[in-house]
Amino acid sequence: MTDSSVASVPVEKLADHVGQTVQLRGWLYNRRSSGKLHFLQVRDGTGIVQAVAFKGDLEPELFESLGHVPQESAMRIVGEVREDKRSPLGVEVGVHQAEVLSESEPFPITKKEHSTGFLMERRHLWIRSRKQHATLRIRARVMKAIRDFLDDRGFLAVDSPIFTPNACEGTTSLFEVDYFDDKAYLTQSGQLYAEASAMAFGNVYCFGPTFRAEKSKTRRHLTEFWMVEPEMAFADLNEVMGVIEDMVCYIVQCCLKDRALELQVLERDVEKLQAIQKPFVRMSYNECVEFFQQKGHPFEWGGDFGSPDETFLAEQHDRPILVHRYPADVKAFYAKRDPEDDKLSLSVDCLAPEGYGEIVGGGERATDLQFLLDQIEHHKLPQEAFEWYLDLRRYGTVTHSGFGLGVERVTAWICGSQHLRECIPYPRMLYRIYP
Amino acid sequence: MTDSSVASVPVEKLADHVGQTVQLRGWLYNRRSSGKLHFLQVRDGTGIVQAVAFKGDLEPELFESLGHVPQESAMRIVGEVREDKRSPLGVEVGVHQAEVLSESEPFPITKKEHSTGFLMERRHLWIRSRKQHATLRIRARVMKAIRDFLDDRGFLAVDSPIFTPNACEGTTSLFEVDYFDDKAYLTQSGQLYAEASAMAFGNVYCFGPTFRAEKSKTRRHLTEFWMVEPEMAFADLNEVMGVIEDMVCYIVQCCLKDRALELQVLERDVEKLQAIQKPFVRMSYNECVEFFQQKGHPFEWGGDFGSPDETFLAEQHDRPILVHRYPADVKAFYAKRDPEDDKLSLSVDCLAPEGYGEIVGGGERATDLQFLLDQIEHHKLPQEAFEWYLDLRRYGTVTHSGFGLGVERVTAWICGSQHLRECIPYPRMLYRIYP
Repeated sequence: MTDSSVASVPVEKLADHVGQTVQLRGWLYNRRSSGKLHFLQVRDGTGIVQAVAFKGDLEPELFESLGHVPQESAMRIVGEVREDKRSPLGVEVGVHQAEVLSESEPFPITKKEHSTGFLMERRHLWIRSRKQHATLRIRARVMKAIRDFLDDRGFLAVDSPIFTPNACEGTTSLFEVDYFDDKAYLTQSGQLYAEASAMAFGNVYCFGPTFRAEKSKTRRHLTEFWMVEPEMAFADLNEVMGVIEDMVCYIVQCCLKDRALELQVLERDVEKLQAIQKPFVRMSYNECVEFFQQKGHPFEWGGDFGSPDETFLAEQHDRPILVHRYPADVKAFYAKRDPEDDKLSLSVDCLAPEGYGEIVGGGERATDLQFLLDQIEHHKLPQEAFEWYLDLRRYGTVTHSGFGLGVERVTAWICGSQHLRECIPYPRMLYRIYP
Repeated sequence: MTDSSVASVPVEKLADHVGQTVQLRGWLYNRRSSGKLHFLQVRDGTGIVQAVAFKGDLEPELFESLGHVPQESAMRIVGEVREDKRSPLGVEVGVHQAEVLSESEPFPITKKEHSTGFLMERRHLWIRSRKQHATLRIRARVMKAIRDFLDDRGFLAVDSPIFTPNACEGTTSLFEVDYFDDKAYLTQSGQLYAEASAMAFGNVYCFGPTFRAEKSKTRRHLTEFWMVEPEMAFADLNEVMGVIEDMVCYIVQCCLKDRALELQVLERDVEKLQAIQKPFVRMSYNECVEFFQQKGHPFEWGGDFGSPDETFLAEQHDRPILVHRYPADVKAFYAKRDPEDDKLSLSVDCLAPEGYGEIVGGGERATDLQFLLDQIEHHKLPQEAFEWYLDLRRYGTVTHSGFGLGVERVTAWICGSQHLRECIPYPRMLYRIYP
């Protein structure tokens, strides 16, 4: 038995308790034994620490049993925190007492290679693995950085609804829900509502799950993902580019500072992240097309950038690029036109380096009622469903701008991960809603 | 015209700029005129300030026009911040320059009484009104307080999915979604996933929208609402009650400190909120039933508390009550049984005072595999869909506890609001998905 009255300390805080006797509660992640010693890797959710059990310190039966306890068994250990320079944590624990709280059945995820399907089917267990664990701890830090950044600058969190009567960007990729005797759609973007909120609250953001029923089975697609969408009354394209730049830098810095261990677990080249500094490169769409032509990269003016185009551009620089003023035809109906060239929109995308592509999309919103009425007609959208949105141009319309940033895409980039599905706790994809 | 190079200051920060000339950007909320003076109430989303235009200071045409500008027109004002003890903000602005950025059409929401239906249909405009605005600024503060409280205590944000293959508490009130060639449900609670996350990350919380397809049209029901669900590995019922108590106190204190103006707008009796202090009253269900009997309040042992029962209990005290150990039959299948009495569960609800009723529900979760298998059979749930959840008891099961707190219910209580629909920006109800 263990003395459960000893203060329990999470693994991530152990380094503050060197020389003290603490209680450690967690699960056996791994074990190495050598005669008189068991080296127990114990994970408690905040980190993994090595607990060293010495034969001479423990009852013979207990010592013996620690050599057999299966992986993922729950344990309580009481022991002394000792400095250990070889450990990434800087400490290990010398075991004084140990107790197995529950013995695990043989854990299905072992050191051998497992197929993606096997792991995805066991996502609820896979998230205990070192790399998945590190990725999701970074994701949480990304989300907190986003909120802190916006809260500290006076943005108010105003949630957009999930159930919507109308589609932000066409209905083809919307999930439909039986809503009592009616139909509703799951939101693809909270932006239109964020615009209404900005007219009431000034600088706002919505931050929640969004949904796309895309029948794509690529590494870049989830049907459910999290997006933050700041919207600023009185801000123009230039101001919004400044906010994007500041926010992306802040997110990266927070992860570098508070998730160094996790980035190490992921073998991330942190020098690449340290290079993410202001100012970002700013290029207009026209300048990009010119650049493509100079470099012999095949691209025709007027189309949206595909993944190879984004990668080609992003590879030129060690930091994100802000590409602005895309052709109006490739952007949504609510994008404001460039007063200098009506074929262009006052839009901006932020492309991450290392081939990660678009992590942010945004721009100035159209402010003119008649322009929007024409656009709605042109795009054959149901005006009735957008009346509330049009009201924002009837009652005190002002210049306003905003953007959307995808949490999983930013997390994938920071983690250096190739798979969006590993950057959300319980991914939903074309053929995947379990567990 | 106005000099747009003058530094723009949000209304909520004006008091820090007394004696300075600032730029104010916002909308005309209200006006009072008296010959040589126009008193313009200008709202910018962070607050409302009085801007005083004196005839002698302005071009005659401009002064004249300020007497006609319609409500909700967008304006830019440059002027001096002056102390004004009569204002709740402590300041007013003396207008030096003014410019109407866009003239509003006649605003539909005026000082006269409007029906709820009329206002709900115009929710995107109604949120500009003083009381709605104050309520939603308090809601944002509630959500931030929740996150700060949990983040500061080492809880990791791990989002539960919205699309789920199975129901947490039965399928009758679930929204069904066409998921490609399959069916999915919208989550009613992220708890089961939060349990899986707690086994991987220790102390966690999920915080997102949840959905209930209840055909109730009462003041207490929304089909879409936000819920935070902390879950703690190794914590028992007693610990979870302590966390609920601390968190509720913290939320109330943050609102009292940072939303004093808004509470004043809502005419909230803040003394009632100041009384929200630890320790909360803790009563077992059995003690509550005994109390009902003593007081002649009709109630039979075994049933769940209805709204009148909760109100009757809550009215006895000036602070929330923690009611624990409800009969197992009125709680969900995963609730742990009381080892002292198998008819009871180790559950807890937190009831807010002043008749606001349940704001939190939680407790200890069952840890035994066979018990859960029996429960799933007893409740006729599809075991297959719960295999992943059962895995948590196969691989290192430990004591764990958690709770769910409803954001809109807490906001309604803090605001003293009778209507949940006013405590979320864009409410979704039985017959309401517009705007």
